Amino acid sequence: MPSKTSPFGQARVGEFRLIQTLSRRFGQTSSRVHCGIGDDTAVVQPLADRRLLLTTDLLAEGVHFRLDTAALEDIGYKAAVASLSDIAAMGGTPQYILVALAIPPSCTAGSVGRLYKGLMEACRPHRVELVGGDTSASQQGLFISITLTGYAARAKVLTRSTAQVGDLIYVTGTLGDSLAGLQLLLNGCGTAGLTRQDERYLLRRHRRPTARIAEGRTMAHHRLASAAIDLSDGLSGDLVHVCEQSGVGAEIGAEVLPLSPACRAYASARAIDPLVLALQGGEDYELLFTVPPRHQDRVERLARRGDCPWSCIGVIRPASFGLRLRHADGTLRKWRITSYQHFLDRRSLIARPRVFSSTPA
Amino acid sequence: MPSKTSPFGQARVGEFRLIQTLSRRFGQTSSRVHCGIGDDTAVVQPLADRRLLLTTDLLAEGVHFRLDTAALEDIGYKAAVASLSDIAAMGGTPQYILVALAIPPSCTAGSVGRLYKGLMEACRPHRVELVGGDTSASQQGLFISITLTGYAARAKVLTRSTAQVGDLIYVTGTLGDSLAGLQLLLNGCGTAGLTRQDERYLLRRHRRPTARIAEGRTMAHHRLASAAIDLSDGLSGDLVHVCEQSGVGAEIGAEVLPLSPACRAYASARAIDPLVLALQGGEDYELLFTVPPRHQDRVERLARRGDCPWSCIGVIRPASFGLRLRHADGTLRKWRITSYQHFLDRRSLIARPRVFSSTPA
Repeated sequence: MPSKTSPFGQARVGEFRLIQTLSRRFGQTSSRVHCGIGDDTAVVQPLADRRLLLTTDLLAEGVHFRLDTAALEDIGYKAAVASLSDIAAMGGTPQYILVALAIPPSCTAGSVGRLYKGLMEACRPHRVELVGGDTSASQQGLFISITLTGYAARAKVLTRSTAQVGDLIYVTGTLGDSLAGLQLLLNGCGTAGLTRQDERYLLRRHRRPTARIAEGRTMAHHRLASAAIDLSDGLSGDLVHVCEQSGVGAEIGAEVLPLSPACRAYASARAIDPLVLALQGGEDYELLFTVPPRHQDRVERLARRGDCPWSCIGVIRPASFGLRLRHADGTLRKWRITSYQHFLDRRSLIARPRVFSSTPA
Repeated sequence: MPSKTSPFGQARVGEFRLIQTLSRRFGQTSSRVHCGIGDDTAVVQPLADRRLLLTTDLLAEGVHFRLDTAALEDIGYKAAVASLSDIAAMGGTPQYILVALAIPPSCTAGSVGRLYKGLMEACRPHRVELVGGDTSASQQGLFISITLTGYAARAKVLTRSTAQVGDLIYVTGTLGDSLAGLQLLLNGCGTAGLTRQDERYLLRRHRRPTARIAEGRTMAHHRLASAAIDLSDGLSGDLVHVCEQSGVGAEIGAEVLPLSPACRAYASARAIDPLVLALQGGEDYELLFTVPPRHQDRVERLARRGDCPWSCIGVIRPASFGLRLRHADGTLRKWRITSYQHFLDRRSLIARPRVFSSTPA
């Protein structure tokens, strides 16, 4: 029998009633949605003359998040940001979301409601509409599958594979904040030398990262970027994808990596090299762009306007150059990067650190 | 380090290498796909003047399938059919698929390859292209998330909510075969009175059901159906969705429910009422249509042509009529239907039986 308890109480989850409740609470859609939650498929009107962007992510309890260190609202929020960030990296505009859950016995309807609440808080500013999904039981562990669609103009889609030698490398925002926030969460706050304000900032950056939709659109709209990727796995690993897929190398300036004052304070208080946080820190969801030199002035002007924070961190080199880090003393050091593998390192939870080491070239 | 073993060997799964291998083996796409597997999102060209259909399903080990009774190829095949069938029920044409997996430690790259092989065997006849996905670790259990897109003409989308009193109710194919096949699988073959050929037929219907894409398109294209749904949870439960969402009731003829000779033989050999198989049997993935009486002749003519097998099983009644079954002796009996709940009955595996009982009206 479906649960008779009122929406999002402590009742165990009943599938059809749950779908009805979620639909009522979060499924209000525009006239472009001809059929939302509740039929065999969603039916929407695609935008004429636009490319359709499609992305799907599957997040697993104990691998991408832990229920003992993260609130369900935040897990939902970050799950949505992970997909929104993928659309941002293509220079696109997100439009429709579908959410499928496999729900373990321990979850109540209230838990599912909180997860959706966080999801929709991330989506609403971008006018993303919830149009469908699926709910299932899980014998063990919560699994969240997000499908997000978006659109972009024909000739204005950013990809990973089109960086050119000589292009400048830019990133939005600051790096390493999310990893610092995670470490605070796991090791406890109250670090000597770190203000409460810094702690709150880093925790918020970990729990509620920002998908850089506007920045991605600006770069794509003005055709300023030659390639882009979002930093979900950390600068160190994600830059490798751009280099591999574009057939190029890269030189990064260690001294110019953008770090927030809070991240610097955290690194100093914990005696950690902030460079490690900036390079290894996953889940910042900042964007990395490569920019042909002829567009540098315009990109810098946009950066100074302040609403699009980004900074130049390096330059694309030939493939034979590999990946190297230029340090303050002028020395160049080669990176040895081993991609993080969910499948081989099951101890890593929430963050997705990559094995990183810096050795003299 | 990514696994260095050759594609789909016995190696433990390494994420990036796996994606590369899957992309090479299954990611060959047409010119409509501007960006397939390997970037932040897929980039495709939607069809102008068509509605976009979007569906997502999340299948959990131990809930939707069991690795000890089903081969990975068959699990993949059925996962794809479940989504294809959703598109069929809307009268649509499937187009792009994205597959996200959460993979437990026990799975090898070979297992994942077999799963994809089955998936693409179901997709290929419909020219569905694999354009993206995601892979993650799972601490326990295999989880498969399928996102499928499709398209349909503007005014030719079939929904669940538009059945009218007086419409005739049709189903494609035969009912109950998949449940009979499942029971054979769980209880062992070699039932007295059942031929090997019958057993093979029922097992195949369970393992490799057919998504009725052509039938859905025919009904939508000629505007013959007023409403439609696919029978994933069984006639008994899925008809309820149509009735609830259309605000109507229904009368079904017990004697006219289409049963295959193999299903009749199985029911007879096991002394089961075949009606129970037809009404409760999930995963048949046949379509149920409601047809205004003025289109009956045309629908019957199409049915006699043979390439679109469907049969009339009842008629839509007012909501106050409820759901009733007309038996051979002319008596009408009310259904008491309790929807199957993944969340409340965790003993049910693979099939999704609904609690069904037939009592005098």
